[in-house]
Amino acid sequence: MKTYQELSREELLTLKSQLEKEFEEAKAKGLKLDMSRGKPAAAQLDMGMDIFDVLNPGSDMKSEDGFDVRNYGVLDGLTEAKRLMADIMGVPAENVIVCGNASLTIMYDTVSRSMTHGVMGSTPWCKLDKVKFLCPAPGYDRHFAITGHFGIEMISVPMTPAGPDMDVVERLVAEDESIKGIWCVPKYSNPQGYSYSDETVKRFANLKPAAEDFRIFWDNAYAIHHLYEDRQDEILEILSECEKAGNPDMVYEFCSTSKVSFSGAGIAAMASSKANLDFVRKSMTIQTIGYDKINQLRHVRYFKDINGIKAHMKKHADMLRPKFEAVLSVLDRELAGKEIGTWTRPNGGYFISFDAMEGCAKRIVAKCKEAGVILTGAGATFPYGIDPEDRNIRIAPSFPTPEEMAAATDLFVLCVKLVSVEKLLEKES
Amino acid sequence: MKTYQELSREELLTLKSQLEKEFEEAKAKGLKLDMSRGKPAAAQLDMGMDIFDVLNPGSDMKSEDGFDVRNYGVLDGLTEAKRLMADIMGVPAENVIVCGNASLTIMYDTVSRSMTHGVMGSTPWCKLDKVKFLCPAPGYDRHFAITGHFGIEMISVPMTPAGPDMDVVERLVAEDESIKGIWCVPKYSNPQGYSYSDETVKRFANLKPAAEDFRIFWDNAYAIHHLYEDRQDEILEILSECEKAGNPDMVYEFCSTSKVSFSGAGIAAMASSKANLDFVRKSMTIQTIGYDKINQLRHVRYFKDINGIKAHMKKHADMLRPKFEAVLSVLDRELAGKEIGTWTRPNGGYFISFDAMEGCAKRIVAKCKEAGVILTGAGATFPYGIDPEDRNIRIAPSFPTPEEMAAATDLFVLCVKLVSVEKLLEKES
Repeated sequence: MKTYQELSREELLTLKSQLEKEFEEAKAKGLKLDMSRGKPAAAQLDMGMDIFDVLNPGSDMKSEDGFDVRNYGVLDGLTEAKRLMADIMGVPAENVIVCGNASLTIMYDTVSRSMTHGVMGSTPWCKLDKVKFLCPAPGYDRHFAITGHFGIEMISVPMTPAGPDMDVVERLVAEDESIKGIWCVPKYSNPQGYSYSDETVKRFANLKPAAEDFRIFWDNAYAIHHLYEDRQDEILEILSECEKAGNPDMVYEFCSTSKVSFSGAGIAAMASSKANLDFVRKSMTIQTIGYDKINQLRHVRYFKDINGIKAHMKKHADMLRPKFEAVLSVLDRELAGKEIGTWTRPNGGYFISFDAMEGCAKRIVAKCKEAGVILTGAGATFPYGIDPEDRNIRIAPSFPTPEEMAAATDLFVLCVKLVSVEKLLEKES
Repeated sequence: MKTYQELSREELLTLKSQLEKEFEEAKAKGLKLDMSRGKPAAAQLDMGMDIFDVLNPGSDMKSEDGFDVRNYGVLDGLTEAKRLMADIMGVPAENVIVCGNASLTIMYDTVSRSMTHGVMGSTPWCKLDKVKFLCPAPGYDRHFAITGHFGIEMISVPMTPAGPDMDVVERLVAEDESIKGIWCVPKYSNPQGYSYSDETVKRFANLKPAAEDFRIFWDNAYAIHHLYEDRQDEILEILSECEKAGNPDMVYEFCSTSKVSFSGAGIAAMASSKANLDFVRKSMTIQTIGYDKINQLRHVRYFKDINGIKAHMKKHADMLRPKFEAVLSVLDRELAGKEIGTWTRPNGGYFISFDAMEGCAKRIVAKCKEAGVILTGAGATFPYGIDPEDRNIRIAPSFPTPEEMAAATDLFVLCVKLVSVEKLLEKES
C-alpha cells in the first residue's frame, strides 16, 4: 500500500473526488455528535446514583471527629475526606486539604492568590513586571486559560511519551527567575494519555529553579482512571520525591472525584507540604468558613475507602474502554500506513490525541463540524490557542456510545483523508 | 433606683465585693457555653433533614431546561435555582448568578477579581497605590477580614438605627477616588440587627462616587430571617433603586441559604446588573466549569419556591425567638436603668449588639471567658479588630438552648456589672 505522499497528482485528484463524494454522503446522514469535551456519559453517571442513598433524613451527620457536618467550621476538610483523597494521590492525609467541587477552582485560586499574595512570603506576582509559566504542549486548555487570564506569559515545552522535555524544563527554570510555574498532567496526560516516566518525575523533583517561588502545578486528574486491568500506568509520587530531593515545597498536587462520582458535584483536593498548606490556609480562612462537608461525608460514606473507589473506577473502565477501542479500531483500519496522521493509544484517562499533517488540524475540525461532529477546537491544546504546526486534535470518546464513537470516527478519518489530500495537492501546485 | 454613676465610692466598693462573690460562685458552676458565632443549633439543622429525601437513586436528574445536573456545564446556575435565589432578594432571575456553598466566597472572589482584573475595565486595584473601603461599624468581622487580607485601607463609618451615617458616606465617596467599595448588611445588620431605612437605601442608590469602579457590597444575609410574624423589617430593593437613580452598575448583592438549609452546604448567589454579571462571568468561566448543580437542584426540589422557604424560616423563627427573648429578658431585668450598657432589640437576624461603658468591652469578654462563656472577641465588629471606644460586644444567641442562653446572659450581666463598677472606681481614683 502506498502512503499518501507517494501518490501521484492524478491518483490524489481521483482520491479527492471520491472522498468528496463520500463526504457529501456522510453529511447527508445528519450526524450530531459531540466529542469535544471529556464529559462522562449519562450511563456512566448512572453508576454512581446509589450515593443518594447514603444520607437520608435519619442519618447521623457527625464526622468521625464528632463535627456536625451540617454546621459551620472545619476549614480544610473532614479527616475522613482527607484520607480518601490522600489515598487517591498516594500521599499522607496530613498533606491534604479538601475543598469544593472542582480542582480547576483550586488551581485558579492558587494562581490568583499568588498574584495578590505571592507564595510563602515572596513578592505578589501582580507586583512583578513579568511572570511566566511553562506549558507542556499539547496540554489542557483550561490550564492555559487560567495563566492567560492572569496575563502570565506562557512558554510551550514539547511533550514526549515520557513527559515534558526535561532538558528544556531544567534549562528554562534554572536561567529565568520570572518562570514561576509549570502545568503538568503527569498521568494519562490531557490530551495524549502519556504518563511521566520515573526519570521525568525525579528530574522534576530535582529542578533547580531560579525563582524561590517556582511551583510545579501537578494536576493528577486521572490518577485512578485506568482503562485496562492488565495495562495500568503508575507514576512516582511527587511530594515524597520533592522532599527527598530537598525541594519539599516545590509542588502543589491537585485531584478530584469529578470523573469518579459526578462532574461538578464531586469533591476536590490539594496536596502539598505543610509549609505550603499553612500559607494556603491563611487565605482560605478569609475566603470561606468551610467547604461543603455534607458532600465530603456523602462521598466517604459511599465509597468507604480507596478500594471502593477503585472498584467503582473498574466499572467506569468497562464502559469507557469500548469507546476508546471504537476510535482506535477505525483509526487503525483507515489510516494505518497512510502517513497522514499519528495517534496515541492511552492506557487510561479521557482522551486520544491525534496529530495530522502539518497545517491540517483546523481544516479537519472545520470539516467534521460541517458534517455534524464537534471536536475540541484545533489549537486548544496549546498556549494562546495556537498550535504552531496546526497538527494536534484532541478526541474525547467518553460522552457518545461506542457506536456513535465509531460513526464519528468514520467521519473523522474521512475528513483527515480529504484535508490531507487537499494539502498534498496544494503543496504540489 | 440609682444609676451606677450615681453611686458613692462606698456603695461601689460594697457592690464590687458582692459582685465578686457572685462571680466566684458563677465560676464554680463550670459553665461551658459558646455564643461567639452565628451558628445554628443542631435542632435547627434537624428541621431541614428531609432535604435528603428529594434526591435518591431513582431520581430524574434533569434541570427544568433539560440539563443533566450531574454533568459538567451550566456555568452560572440552574434556571430554577436562579429563580429561587432571586425571590429571596426580590430581584429578577436574570440578574442572578448561583454559585457554590458560601456567599462569603463570592464576596472574597469579587474583591480578589477586582484586585487582579479591575471592575468592568477599570485599572486592577493591585496596580493602584491605595484602595480604600468604607466599613460601617460595628459590622461583620469576616467582611473586614477580606478587605484587610487584600491590604485595602478600611475607614469606619458610624452606624445608626437607620443604617450607616449617609452624610459621611456621601461625602467620602464623592471626594476620594481611592474609595472603591462599602460593606453593607442592609437588613437585620450584623451585629445590631438594624435595617436600613428607605431613605438610606435611596441615598445609597443615588451616591455620586468619585471612582467609576466604586461598588456597594450589599450582603443581604438575613433577607428572610425574621424573628416575629407581626414585626418584620422590609427594606427597599437596591438593584432597582440604583437603576432608577442612573447607577445601574453600582451594586453587588449577595445572599445564601447557609442559615436556611445548612451552614456550609447551602447555595449562595450574587445579584447585579447584566454588565456587572457579564464581567464576573468572564472570570468565572476560567475559575470553574460550573458549581454544584446537584445541590442547587436538591434545594429547589426541597423548598420548591420562596413560599416553601418562608414556611421553613417560620419554623426557624419559632426556635430562635425564645433564645433572643431569653437574652433580652435578662438584660432588661438586670441592667435596665443602671446606665452601664445599651442593647438592641432586633426583629430578625442572628445577633444582639451590646454597648458597654467606654473601655469595658474587652474586660467583660475576658471575664465571661474566665467563667466559661465564650463571646465574640471584643473589637471584632470593627475594622482591624479595634473598637476605638472598646464598647461593642456581639451576642449570638442561635447556638445554645434558651435555658443555656439565660444562664450565659446571667453571667454576662454579672460581668458587665463587675467590670463597670471597677471602671467607675478607677475613674474616681
